[in-house]
Amino acid sequence: MAKLEVAYSPDLYSVYENKEAIVIVIDIFRATSAICNAFEHGVSSIIPVKTVEEARAYQRQGFLAAAERQGQIVEGFDIGNSPFHYMTNKVKGQDVVLTTTNGTRAISISKDAKQVLVGSFLNISALCNYLKEQEQDVLLLCAGWKGRYNLEDSLFAGAVVERLEGEVFNELSDSARSAKALAKQAGSNLNEFLKDSSHRKRLKNLDFEKDIEFCLKLDVSNKVPALIEGRLRPLK
Amino acid sequence: MAKLEVAYSPDLYSVYENKEAIVIVIDIFRATSAICNAFEHGVSSIIPVKTVEEARAYQRQGFLAAAERQGQIVEGFDIGNSPFHYMTNKVKGQDVVLTTTNGTRAISISKDAKQVLVGSFLNISALCNYLKEQEQDVLLLCAGWKGRYNLEDSLFAGAVVERLEGEVFNELSDSARSAKALAKQAGSNLNEFLKDSSHRKRLKNLDFEKDIEFCLKLDVSNKVPALIEGRLRPLK
Repeated sequence: MAKLEVAYSPDLYSVYENKEAIVIVIDIFRATSAICNAFEHGVSSIIPVKTVEEARAYQRQGFLAAAERQGQIVEGFDIGNSPFHYMTNKVKGQDVVLTTTNGTRAISISKDAKQVLVGSFLNISALCNYLKEQEQDVLLLCAGWKGRYNLEDSLFAGAVVERLEGEVFNELSDSARSAKALAKQAGSNLNEFLKDSSHRKRLKNLDFEKDIEFCLKLDVSNKVPALIEGRLRPLK
Repeated sequence: MAKLEVAYSPDLYSVYENKEAIVIVIDIFRATSAICNAFEHGVSSIIPVKTVEEARAYQRQGFLAAAERQGQIVEGFDIGNSPFHYMTNKVKGQDVVLTTTNGTRAISISKDAKQVLVGSFLNISALCNYLKEQEQDVLLLCAGWKGRYNLEDSLFAGAVVERLEGEVFNELSDSARSAKALAKQAGSNLNEFLKDSSHRKRLKNLDFEKDIEFCLKLDVSNKVPALIEGRLRPLK
């Protein structure tokens, strides 16, 4: 008997806050996809920070730092939130500081939850298998875009609801039902379903079609990143 | 060329706020359905207030006042937010003061918009025809339940998007696309689609099945209530 709920915006986190729930942070294009991919490629830990200034302060201390705003790498940083930025030898074994427009904000807002995990299509099966074992309430927290609802995060939330709903997860919020309806309508062709999404258009202008395609791949990683004492690391 | 957007909660109003937009307040179960029905049955005006205390103050001045909290009529009031409360001779020609859990809160939050209108399935065609004539940005504001997403308000928003989308309303937010997907999936059997919704369950316990059925009727009224100087009255 566990609740399965979706908050469609970090601005709704306080409304859905549940001390018993595991929070899954979702920012498909692209922060949580990049985080999952980073651990698959040997990054040691990721320190999420809210502001570019904090990232710069870590950078001055010698950390490798990544920063994205408005979909682009911030001036003075070498890497941003493209999953492809985390497939190089430069990041292997490193502790990476990361700030993004939406994803790291959602992590920061939920940091006091019982447990905070990172979800993306890249690790969806590993994540769902872990959640099935826990039998705890789950709150799927969509990072959205500057507080707004977005299609790709909601679609992922719906895919998780489809996989979890059942005897254990038997109490679905209306938002979870709606996410499931969205995932059902999308079917298996996520790319086609998202062709008119606002974020897609925003990224398309920035020539990130390759990133989008990668972020919609299933099960590239079997790692589940978790926030532990302010740092993301894969669960054992 | 106009924007069509949906805010799934009053708590997201500030994120979607648009000085050029007509705001449609939506609280299907039951405030905005009751308001539309009230004007169809000869209520002169409705003064929406946020708190029960404000409603009591008006009551002491001799106003007919209606108050709902937790789905029930508040003690000391004769009427609440059931559409059936507004079909009696008692309300005809009256100025009614109204406070509800979600609907009047949404009206209050959006009161400084360019124009605030009230929508429900009961007046959907009249509302959409009016909006088509205006050719202005439209923000559909779902009242939800205490800040949470709900299915019935979103479904109505989607039904409006289905009717308006086209040459004039050609810029849809992701939330508008998602509402449309929900309406498409529901098809014409709204009652069946909403059978597991959380609000439905809440009201079911309170024996309001008759209200729910009524609130899902189409085009019972051809009036479009608008907020003008703090009072709701039907547009001419």
